[in-house]
Amino acid sequence: MNITPELPDIDALLDSLPRGDDAAEAAARARQGQLVKPTGSLGRLEDIAVHLARWQGAERPRLETVTITVFAGSHGITKHGVSAFPDEVNAQMLGGFHAGFAAVCQLAEAFGAELKAIDCGVAHPTDDFTVGPAMDAAAFAEAVGKGRASVRGDEDLLIFGEMGIGNTTAAAAVAAAICGGDPAGWVGQGTGVDEDGLARKADVVRRGLMANPASSGNPVEVLRCLGGREMAAILGACLEARKKSIPVLIDGFIATASVAPLGRQGLAHCLSGHASQEHGHRKLLDFLGLDPILDLGMRLGEGSGAATALGIVRAAVACHNGMATFEEAAVAGKNG
Amino acid sequence: MNITPELPDIDALLDSLPRGDDAAEAAARARQGQLVKPTGSLGRLEDIAVHLARWQGAERPRLETVTITVFAGSHGITKHGVSAFPDEVNAQMLGGFHAGFAAVCQLAEAFGAELKAIDCGVAHPTDDFTVGPAMDAAAFAEAVGKGRASVRGDEDLLIFGEMGIGNTTAAAAVAAAICGGDPAGWVGQGTGVDEDGLARKADVVRRGLMANPASSGNPVEVLRCLGGREMAAILGACLEARKKSIPVLIDGFIATASVAPLGRQGLAHCLSGHASQEHGHRKLLDFLGLDPILDLGMRLGEGSGAATALGIVRAAVACHNGMATFEEAAVAGKNG
Repeated sequence: MNITPELPDIDALLDSLPRGDDAAEAAARARQGQLVKPTGSLGRLEDIAVHLARWQGAERPRLETVTITVFAGSHGITKHGVSAFPDEVNAQMLGGFHAGFAAVCQLAEAFGAELKAIDCGVAHPTDDFTVGPAMDAAAFAEAVGKGRASVRGDEDLLIFGEMGIGNTTAAAAVAAAICGGDPAGWVGQGTGVDEDGLARKADVVRRGLMANPASSGNPVEVLRCLGGREMAAILGACLEARKKSIPVLIDGFIATASVAPLGRQGLAHCLSGHASQEHGHRKLLDFLGLDPILDLGMRLGEGSGAATALGIVRAAVACHNGMATFEEAAVAGKNG
Repeated sequence: MNITPELPDIDALLDSLPRGDDAAEAAARARQGQLVKPTGSLGRLEDIAVHLARWQGAERPRLETVTITVFAGSHGITKHGVSAFPDEVNAQMLGGFHAGFAAVCQLAEAFGAELKAIDCGVAHPTDDFTVGPAMDAAAFAEAVGKGRASVRGDEDLLIFGEMGIGNTTAAAAVAAAICGGDPAGWVGQGTGVDEDGLARKADVVRRGLMANPASSGNPVEVLRCLGGREMAAILGACLEARKKSIPVLIDGFIATASVAPLGRQGLAHCLSGHASQEHGHRKLLDFLGLDPILDLGMRLGEGSGAATALGIVRAAVACHNGMATFEEAAVAGKNG
């Protein structure tokens, strides 16, 4: 299906994507078996290191250049009272990412990541998807292109965050359209709405699905019709990362909904950083076969959950690269 | 009850311990409510920062001096074939902690912690607890004292790790004696025993409980009769940390069993770093009312699980201390 110049034919594209380096994965797994510890005793840390080895094509993965890119957009549906915060926060927080005062700035600094913030058009909200598509083809293609262009190619690991008042509702609509199920089962408290707000969110999702029937069955179209500019940019960035064989650490509900159109096959280069407290995220992760590294009740966005998980990824790589083997350490192995 | 000169009367001692700083906790919680994010949206990260604030007595906690102390000991019960690895590994790994090749060394370096390794007597295994107490009063007091002496007092956060072939069996015996239940329900694969090994471990625990009936009902006595020197040292170190109001990040099954005699009241200064894959740890955490930060299927010991969780603690403190408030950032707050 021909969606946009940026995503000409998603099925053919998925088939053409790099699939990771089997030999590097095997070498990394073998190394894990030789390190001075009982086999498997580092649990998930071993799998994380092996995943990076596969996608970087190196027995010992690097984490010299880790980039967190936060994409910001505004949403036409906020007029329906779906968020606890006003739209003006988008531009203010975009400034905050540059000024360094947001949560993700502290996390990037703590874990040695470069932070970029990209305006996907906070001054130009998407259209209200309860009456038609959120974006026309040109707007969607532009946002996808911004995401793709954000990936330089020298990154060892990429994290994509988002800022967009109203986007838990957009993500719920995308998840409902792709996975099915009752819209009320996909909406959550977001930045902190009350019971009435939750009901409004479910209603907006329901109306969005009805107003955009043509999108069903085509997940990329779903994102154009029900998502946001920052979400389209995340899709593009995640796809570009895959084309360049760069592993990705996925953030929470909105970031996961943004890349959901790529499906399990298209997300093979990705790890899930965390399970958000946002209702629906666990279901979406299960749908995509993703097992989150962390479950800390976070629901801030900005890439903050994945940025926190970066600490765990650093731990995994530090052990994988820095530990001695039994032979190097002259430590006795397992009995028998 | 008078146990040892080091632990003269555990009940009176528990009553005399510092209880944390209510005002610092309240100030830290208030600060979390002012930071530029929806209230509660950093989830567990908020609670971790507030916990450190309480025990450090400061609205903004420090993590300048974080110390991981690994205590090593040898176990008389290894003659019964309860481990997949030979006893000589204890001394070899103790050397490895100093040489820097072990997992915990990489984690300490990754997260900016000081690493100390203390020989609690790897050349002098505890007695075989299937025929009597693992330690006499003097040996136990000496080990507890080593742990207490390891705490300088200038640490902002402490992690205690252990090395001791056979000590998952000792920990299972301690947990079974303190919490009750079938011994088979407390033993796990440790460094990687097979089904026969598991059965031997359960049998050793059963015989240990029978051979040390006097210890029941007195958790400190349980640790003397069924634990190990490194475990007694961890008890002493954790108690000394509490006396000095230093927060502790508890490691896995063995470390948790070591501090279990302090009970919920005595562990108020502690956070649980992770849920080990070692069978029994989750049950023991529940018994002690501890909620682990991570669940990554780790089962290595050395303090490695808590050292990995140190990354999350650093993330929590970075956000708590470094983020701007809504007022400082001039960002619009919640509607209404």
